[in-house]
Amino acid sequence: MSPFIKNAWYVACFSQELSNQPLARTLLGQRVVLFRTASGAPAALEDRCCHRMAPLSRGEVEPDGIRCGYHGMKFAPTGQCIEIPGQTQIDARMCVQDYLVHEQHGFVWIWLGDRAQASVSAIVDCHWHTDSQWQSTQGYIHYRANYQLIVDNLLDFSHLTFVHKTTLANNAFPNAQPAIEPFDQGIRLTREIRDAQPSPLHQMAGKFEGRVNFWNRQAWWLPSVFENWAGSVEASTPGPAHEQPGAFLLRHFSLLTPETEHTTHYFWIQPCQFPRPDDTLIGKVKKGIDTAFEEDRQMIEAQQQNIHDNPEAPMRGIAADKALNMIRMMIKRRLQHEAEALNP
Amino acid sequence: MSPFIKNAWYVACFSQELSNQPLARTLLGQRVVLFRTASGAPAALEDRCCHRMAPLSRGEVEPDGIRCGYHGMKFAPTGQCIEIPGQTQIDARMCVQDYLVHEQHGFVWIWLGDRAQASVSAIVDCHWHTDSQWQSTQGYIHYRANYQLIVDNLLDFSHLTFVHKTTLANNAFPNAQPAIEPFDQGIRLTREIRDAQPSPLHQMAGKFEGRVNFWNRQAWWLPSVFENWAGSVEASTPGPAHEQPGAFLLRHFSLLTPETEHTTHYFWIQPCQFPRPDDTLIGKVKKGIDTAFEEDRQMIEAQQQNIHDNPEAPMRGIAADKALNMIRMMIKRRLQHEAEALNP
Amino acid sequence: MSPFIKNAWYVACFSQELSNQPLARTLLGQRVVLFRTASGAPAALEDRCCHRMAPLSRGEVEPDGIRCGYHGMKFAPTGQCIEIPGQTQIDARMCVQDYLVHEQHGFVWIWLGDRAQASVSAIVDCHWHTDSQWQSTQGYIHYRANYQLIVDNLLDFSHLTFVHKTTLANNAFPNAQPAIEPFDQGIRLTREIRDAQPSPLHQMAGKFEGRVNFWNRQAWWLPSVFENWAGSVEASTPGPAHEQPGAFLLRHFSLLTPETEHTTHYFWIQPCQFPRPDDTLIGKVKKGIDTAFEEDRQMIEAQQQNIHDNPEAPMRGIAADKALNMIRMMIKRRLQHEAEALNP
Repeated sequence: MSPFIKNAWYVACFSQELSNQPLARTLLGQRVVLFRTASGAPAALEDRCCHRMAPLSRGEVEPDGIRCGYHGMKFAPTGQCIEIPGQTQIDARMCVQDYLVHEQHGFVWIWLGDRAQASVSAIVDCHWHTDSQWQSTQGYIHYRANYQLIVDNLLDFSHLTFVHKTTLANNAFPNAQPAIEPFDQGIRLTREIRDAQPSPLHQMAGKFEGRVNFWNRQAWWLPSVFENWAGSVEASTPGPAHEQPGAFLLRHFSLLTPETEHTTHYFWIQPCQFPRPDDTLIGKVKKGIDTAFEEDRQMIEAQQQNIHDNPEAPMRGIAADKALNMIRMMIKRRLQHEAEALNP
Repeated sequence: MSPFIKNAWYVACFSQELSNQPLARTLLGQRVVLFRTASGAPAALEDRCCHRMAPLSRGEVEPDGIRCGYHGMKFAPTGQCIEIPGQTQIDARMCVQDYLVHEQHGFVWIWLGDRAQASVSAIVDCHWHTDSQWQSTQGYIHYRANYQLIVDNLLDFSHLTFVHKTTLANNAFPNAQPAIEPFDQGIRLTREIRDAQPSPLHQMAGKFEGRVNFWNRQAWWLPSVFENWAGSVEASTPGPAHEQPGAFLLRHFSLLTPETEHTTHYFWIQPCQFPRPDDTLIGKVKKGIDTAFEEDRQMIEAQQQNIHDNPEAPMRGIAADKALNMIRMMIKRRLQHEAEALNP
Repeated sequence: MSPFIKNAWYVACFSQELSNQPLARTLLGQRVVLFRTASGAPAALEDRCCHRMAPLSRGEVEPDGIRCGYHGMKFAPTGQCIEIPGQTQIDARMCVQDYLVHEQHGFVWIWLGDRAQASVSAIVDCHWHTDSQWQSTQGYIHYRANYQLIVDNLLDFSHLTFVHKTTLANNAFPNAQPAIEPFDQGIRLTREIRDAQPSPLHQMAGKFEGRVNFWNRQAWWLPSVFENWAGSVEASTPGPAHEQPGAFLLRHFSLLTPETEHTTHYFWIQPCQFPRPDDTLIGKVKKGIDTAFEEDRQMIEAQQQNIHDNPEAPMRGIAADKALNMIRMMIKRRLQHEAEALNP
C-alpha cells in the first residue's frame, strides 16, 4: 500500500520559485522537475531521462521543452522526446512521465495520481493570499518528519501554551475544546474564547492593550491543507466576535507536501487584516510565525526520531486528541480506498 | 538475545552532569532522561512521552517531576503521569518506564534490568575518587565501537608499547604476563616488574630519575568496570613493591556503558597519590590519559569498522589474549543466563 | 556473483603515492594496505590484522614488512606473520592475504583474483606517460558511482557537446558515429572528422586559428582501462590526418578501479605532443581535463543516485549507445565466466 494519498492536489512550489530554470523537487517519493515553458505555463516531468537516467533538472529549459544535460535529448511538457542529437527516428516509447499541474493564487499545484479523477475545482481556495484587501506573508520549511505528525500538530491547540511561549501561547487554550464537525473533505473546528489575554502575536498584530475575544474557524482538507481563519477583537466589543470591526483577522494556510515517508515540504501563507495597520506589522507577523514554526519543527523532528527508533511503542490518547484521531482515521480510509481501487 | 547484560549497574553520568535541566542519554539502546527532583535526588525515566512520543528531555523539570514540552503532561519520578492540561481524569496506563538510580562517589548509576535483582551493594567501590587523601581527575569519551572491544583493550597490556609511545609505553610490558585469577564477578590480574624504565606517565607523575619497580592489581567486574590499581617506586627500594613509601600510586577506573551495539559511553576517573606532589601533576596526568585514550579510540574505532565490514573474518588468538578470552566467555555466559531467565 | 571482474590488473595507485608510509585503499570492495619495502618494491596486503582486525595501515612500515600499530605483530610482504611481541612460537595460520602487485610506467597495478591467471604482459601499455618524447600530466578523482557508468561515459562522444561546452565540445561529434571493432580484450573505436571547428581544448593546445581535421583511435580494455589516442591538425593539411606533422597529439588513459559497487577510483594520464610547444600548455591541458571531468562527475553521480533510487526503471537505448552496449555485454559475459569458474 502506498504511504501517500495519490489522488489529491499538492503544492509543488510557490509561483515565485518557478522560472525557465529547472526546479528539482521530490514529491511523494518521486523525483520531479518543474519549469515554465515559453508561454509561462508550468510543466512537471519525471526528473529522470528515459535514456540513461540522468536528472533532467541538470539540463536546460528551451521554449518548447527541457533538454537533458547529458546527451542532449529534448522532452516536451507532455513527456514525449522530441529530439535526439545525431538521430532522426524517435521511438514512441522515448518519453518520461508527465504530471498535471495547475497554478493558482501564488502556488503551483501538482496531481500525482489517477488523472481521470483530477479536477482543479478541488484545489483549496487560498485567494486571500493574492487579494489586495489583505496583507500577506509566506514561508517554507523543510521537515525531517512524516507529514502526519505535522497534521497532528496543526490540529492541536493544546500544545501552543507549551511550545510557543513567546508567540502563540494562550493560557485559555488547553481548556477550550473546539466544536468539531466532519465534512466530506476533512473536518472543521470552531473555538471561541471570550475575555482572555491575547497571545503575544495577536497582541502585537492588533495593538491590543487589554483582554480580547478570540475565535477561530479551522478546516483541514484531506490530505494535507490546514486553514486557520482566526481573529481577536477587544473584549469589550459586544455581540458575536466573528468579523467585528476593529478585529485583527488572519487566514492562515499551512500546506504540506510529503517529500518522502520521513520528510515533508511545508509551505505556509498568512494573509492578515490589521485594525491599526502600519508598515512593520506584516514583517513582525512573519517573524513570529517563523519562530513558532521552528519551535514546532524541533519538537516534531525529535518526536519522529523517537517513533522511528521505537515503532512498536504504543501511543496513549488524551482528550485533546479528538480531531487528530478523526483525521488519522480519514487518511487511513482514503489510503485503503486508493489501494483497493488499484487492486480490486 | 539482548546484546547487553541487563542485570547490572552502569554509570549513567557523572554527578556533576545532573541538575534540574533534563539530560538525555541513550543507555543500552534505550533513550533515558535523567534529572534531579527538588530534593536533589536523581531520577531516570524513559525519554519518550507515552502520549505522542515526544522526548521528555525537551521539557522542563519541576520540583515533583518533569513536564513534557509538547502538550504539557507531567510525570513523577515513578513514571506516573500526574497532570494532563485541560483534563482532570488520568488513566493509570498513562505512565512511562522509570529506572532505578543510585548516586555514589561522583557517579549516578542506573539499573535497566530486572529490579528484583538490583542491590546497591553490587556497585563497584570507587570511593577513592571523592576521598580527600587522593587527588583525582576524570574524563568522558564517546566511542563509536562496541564496549567489548574497549574491554579487550583495557585488559591487554601488550598494546601499550605500540599504541601509547609517549604516555603509557613500557618496553617490559609485552613480556610480563600477568597472573590471572577469576572471581565470581570478573577476573583479577596481577603484574610485577622490577628494575625497569618507567612509562613516560609514571616518570612524570613520580618525578623518577632512574629505573623503577612497577606493579599493578587490576580487576574487571562484569560487565564493564575496569579498575587498575598501580604504582611505581624507585628500583632501589627493597622488599615487595606494593604500597612502599615514595611510590606513585593510582586507582584508575574505566567505566563503560554501552550506548548502542556500536557506540559506548566511556567514563574514567584516576585518583592519584604523588610522592613529590605539586599543583601541576594532576593536570598533567589528565592530559596524559586524554592523549593515550584518544590513541586507543582511533585504533579501536578503526578496528570496529573493519569488523563491521567483514563480520565473518576469523580472529586468530595470541598468548596475550588470555584475560580477554576469559572475560568474553564470562560475558557470553551471563548473556545466555539472562536470555534463559526471560525464556525458561 | 561478484559484482567485479577479479581476474584483471587494476591500478592501485600512482607510483608517487607509494612510500614507506602505509597507504590504505579499498579496491574491489577489499581493504588493502600498500607500502614499499626496503628495496623499494611495492607490496600489498589485506588491511586487517589477523589477530584482532586492526587496520595494518595504522601501523608502521619496517624494512622487512609492516608492523600492526595495535599489538605490534609484524607481517612480511608475503602476508606471513614474522613477529609476535612476547611470544616466540608463531602459528602458520597467523597470516593475512597478500596480493600481486607490479609497478610499471608510473602506476602500481594490483591483481586481486586467481593468481594462476596473472601475467604482467596483460597490463595495458601506458609507456607514453614516462617517455621523454611526450609531456604528460595526470589526475585522480574519487567518484560516487559504479565504474560502469563512467565506462559508458568515456565510450560515448555524443555527450561532449552537452556536458563540456567550454572544453571538449565539438558540434560535429553527435553526428560522427565511430567505426567499432571488437577484439579479444575489448573494443576499438575510430573516428575521423574533416574540416571542423576544433574543440576549445584542442584549439588551445594546438594553437589553431581555423578549422581542423580531427581523428581518434580509442581502445577499451576489459574491464576498465580506456585509451584515447587523438589529434587535430589544420584542415588544409592534405592526406589522411593520422600523425601528420603539425598535429596536436594526445594519448589519454583513463584507468578505473572500483572501490565499492557504488564508488570508483579514477586515475588518468594525458601524454601530449604540441606542434607549437610552450611551458604553459601542459598545465592548461590539465586544467581543461580537470574541468571537463568534474562536469562528468557531477552528472554521473546524479545519474547513479537516480538509478539507486529507482533500480527497476528501464533504460531506453539510442543509436549512440552501440559501443556502450557491446562493452556492457562483454563485462557481463566475463563476470558469468568467472562465476562459473568458481562454481563449476
